[in-house]
Amino acid sequence: MNTPITSIPGGVTAPAGFRAAGLHCGIKTSGRFDLSLLVSDRPAAAAGVFTTNLAQAAPVLVSLEHLAASGGRARAVVTNSGCANACTGPQGLLDAHEMTALAAAATGGVPHDVLVASTGVIGVNLNMAALRTGIPQAAAALSPDGGADAALGIMTTDPFPKSAAVAVETSAGTFRVGGMAKGSGMIEPRLATMLGYLTTDAAVDPVRLRRVLVDACRFTFNAITVDGEPSTNDCVFALANGAAGVTIDDTLEAALFEAFRAVAQELALGIVRGGEGATKLVSITTSGAATDADAWTAARAIANSLLVKTAIHGADPNWGRLVAAAGRSGARFVLDAARVRIGDLVLFEGGRPFDERAPEAATYLQGTDLAIEVNLGAGGTHTATVWTCDLSKMYVQINAEYRT
Amino acid sequence: MNTPITSIPGGVTAPAGFRAAGLHCGIKTSGRFDLSLLVSDRPAAAAGVFTTNLAQAAPVLVSLEHLAASGGRARAVVTNSGCANACTGPQGLLDAHEMTALAAAATGGVPHDVLVASTGVIGVNLNMAALRTGIPQAAAALSPDGGADAALGIMTTDPFPKSAAVAVETSAGTFRVGGMAKGSGMIEPRLATMLGYLTTDAAVDPVRLRRVLVDACRFTFNAITVDGEPSTNDCVFALANGAAGVTIDDTLEAALFEAFRAVAQELALGIVRGGEGATKLVSITTSGAATDADAWTAARAIANSLLVKTAIHGADPNWGRLVAAAGRSGARFVLDAARVRIGDLVLFEGGRPFDERAPEAATYLQGTDLAIEVNLGAGGTHTATVWTCDLSKMYVQINAEYRT
Repeated sequence: MNTPITSIPGGVTAPAGFRAAGLHCGIKTSGRFDLSLLVSDRPAAAAGVFTTNLAQAAPVLVSLEHLAASGGRARAVVTNSGCANACTGPQGLLDAHEMTALAAAATGGVPHDVLVASTGVIGVNLNMAALRTGIPQAAAALSPDGGADAALGIMTTDPFPKSAAVAVETSAGTFRVGGMAKGSGMIEPRLATMLGYLTTDAAVDPVRLRRVLVDACRFTFNAITVDGEPSTNDCVFALANGAAGVTIDDTLEAALFEAFRAVAQELALGIVRGGEGATKLVSITTSGAATDADAWTAARAIANSLLVKTAIHGADPNWGRLVAAAGRSGARFVLDAARVRIGDLVLFEGGRPFDERAPEAATYLQGTDLAIEVNLGAGGTHTATVWTCDLSKMYVQINAEYRT
Repeated sequence: MNTPITSIPGGVTAPAGFRAAGLHCGIKTSGRFDLSLLVSDRPAAAAGVFTTNLAQAAPVLVSLEHLAASGGRARAVVTNSGCANACTGPQGLLDAHEMTALAAAATGGVPHDVLVASTGVIGVNLNMAALRTGIPQAAAALSPDGGADAALGIMTTDPFPKSAAVAVETSAGTFRVGGMAKGSGMIEPRLATMLGYLTTDAAVDPVRLRRVLVDACRFTFNAITVDGEPSTNDCVFALANGAAGVTIDDTLEAALFEAFRAVAQELALGIVRGGEGATKLVSITTSGAATDADAWTAARAIANSLLVKTAIHGADPNWGRLVAAAGRSGARFVLDAARVRIGDLVLFEGGRPFDERAPEAATYLQGTDLAIEVNLGAGGTHTATVWTCDLSKMYVQINAEYRT
């Protein structure tokens, strides 16, 4: 498969037939954007992947219900930031439903065609008065150039907005995939939400859309970690409206997957780069794993190890911590056959250290884009890559401050 | 079971028939104690529990081999600090074997009767010259009052030594249980070791001793966490020499268990209190769990959550983070039936927050000995308690500093 995929501007509104808006409606006291609306001009196939946290927030439950009721179709996604509408009981469900009703009324549809997401403080009810005026205002502001504003409207305290889009040339014509995401904030205490949105103007049936979305997330949104804390509100949506006149069939599915993966990866890496207190983006690759599950298990264990993350923060080529994290991960691990590589430098192999390379590795670790590989020595060929960031004092400061 | 158990001084040498010593032999450049020797005057039943990390250090492998060869008997345990003898290949195994041979020669026994442990930097070979002079010196210094010195000899950069002992009155007579431990250091980079030692002058057959040790560890050494990082060298030893003339049979096994548990808990809580950068000791109790495994899974997830640990550091009664950690733990969790208690204050119950109690909870969290309970609402009666500490900037500083 050699699909020409080109980066383009525009974010979620880069694909034809999508409009979006973002604005401040009054949920955040800071005056920053706190509402985002994304609309497809025609009914779109829709798919979502949602947090596995059993404390699912009200908007997650409502979006799941709407996707089931519509058979995988949607026309709009409405999102507020500043309040997660999680752990809010029956009132939270009523409010999430009303958000979809407000968006449907303002854009000329029915509530079941609207998906909903919230991000912000847990355990606080939504300011519905603000949303009752804000959602119609957002509908009036919808624009094919609104992708940038929409990406601002879903931020909490992310250090920067995250948008991406690509164009894909195929034998059947050109289609586009756009996306936006927020996450890794948690600079507001009680907040722990990752949201992702992918749009495409290709025509994709809902079953195929969900399959491609799940596959693409596996290597992107599901392969990042800041602090190993899946939230109550995590979700990624995909909308496919067919406006480009290209229908994704079995032949083109791989092209759609590559495009989804490219957009999702750019967004996901943006989340890690903007992780709380993060100063470095680090890819952790495992190889030589006995099974695919082992490769992921070990990569996640290393990527979430506090000792690994603090060593990277201190530019310490501390391969012993990488070995220890792999060894305790539960994955098959054979010490004498294992290998640790930091950048291009092998620091442990054949059961023995190469500490003479430590100074060079320490210099490498002073960079901001780092690659680490641990071969588990388990005789297999399976591999996995997880992206993580370093753990700094700023992370502690951000999360230890009493919420105000 | 209502066994009179009384705290007594003396640590590992509190039980009759044990002698110990600790001294500086030259492994640490600081001049601090780096060698510890514990000897039973008569052959003792012995048991050990060891790290589940697959990157097991050489002394772990040798101790396992000796316990198997002796059928659960030992006369001595030799321990060095300052070097973990982990990831050291064939030379590391030779060195660990030589440590047991040196201790056997100096105390009049055979190498198979000696257990061995090491703690300190990973990936560096032992200074055997220092041990060849140090171990005979330690043997010459053995004393029934040597428990305190022995506890110093196993420390790395623990902020304080950890010793404990109890006397147990039974219908068959009095016996004693002593113990020492080190752990949570890692102030020296590359170091991640917890060591525990329990002694008793009761007579216990090796099979029973191992069962009681495993049971006691389950609620003590295995129920603590500082940073969720099981090391390459963790081990807990138990020696029972029978010098008190009390034989532990089925009737007395519960008394031995309670005594082991009391000593191990005091040592284990000392490890958490002295955890890297720790300022607070926190018990995390789960209740209402559907299964025993669920209770432990959720308690561990909460106790290792960076968001929970930073919130506690900041005295923030952030119950949303407790709910989110329980919800993602994999344990069965029912949000509407869950309950969160900080100290005596219920902050979430029946699906709704009680934020009016937050200021009082914040005041409580400014203490240094804290209790948190999360009822999982899963309809069961299972419960578990894990002890953890807060996560401070000092933890990051300790572990980010380049090893010197």
